[in-house]
Amino acid sequence: MGASLLAAMTGMTCVAAQEKGSPYVQLAELEIDPAQLQPYKAALREHIETAVRIEPGVLALYTVSDKEYPSRIRVFEIYADADAYRAHLEAPHFKKYKAATEPMVRALRLVPVDVVALAAKPR
Amino acid sequence: MGASLLAAMTGMTCVAAQEKGSPYVQLAELEIDPAQLQPYKAALREHIETAVRIEPGVLALYTVSDKEYPSRIRVFEIYADADAYRAHLEAPHFKKYKAATEPMVRALRLVPVDVVALAAKPR
Repeated sequence: MGASLLAAMTGMTCVAAQEKGSPYVQLAELEIDPAQLQPYKAALREHIETAVRIEPGVLALYTVSDKEYPSRIRVFEIYADADAYRAHLEAPHFKKYKAATEPMVRALRLVPVDVVALAAKPR
Repeated sequence: MGASLLAAMTGMTCVAAQEKGSPYVQLAELEIDPAQLQPYKAALREHIETAVRIEPGVLALYTVSDKEYPSRIRVFEIYADADAYRAHLEAPHFKKYKAATEPMVRALRLVPVDVVALAAKPR
């Protein structure tokens, strides 16, 4: 990961999504079978911890559930760049998570986005 | 901000939203007047940079626009705790941003969420 990416992710820098080498950001919206919500969340937690720990290009995977509709899960995903996202999709732990949780997922929508600003406390 | 919060935001820790002293996370979904999208985004960028820089409890404000519907803006908001969020709402720069952008915003929905996992690269 280059210095500019580190700067972008770690400081107050705002990065336009179209800039070459800039972070690749995506939203995932999932609807989970309510009867399988707890095992799904456990599998998801394990998966994202693994991905962030072992994949250099997976910068953040922030996951929340809607208070009103707890079976609706959203993930705010930040990768170093589009290549890092592609590598993530090919990682064995991703494929394992995907196969294990497929029967629990009723719907999955990936929302392509442009970055307006990624502002976070300096590291 | 306590050490546990710093750990939660800076490392691989997963934090349940209900835990006392845990981060307060919220999603904001906005629909902007397309004719005013550029000035709105400029005002928003300035506001979130200021908030993250000067408010100790504003940890991250990640803002994206939908590629398909660019006037649809989403903000993934992470505060140190609920008190930090309340303080943010009272901050002069927030009130200034709010007043300046109110005519540009067609709809605003705040989505209350529970944290499933906040996984990010260690700082």
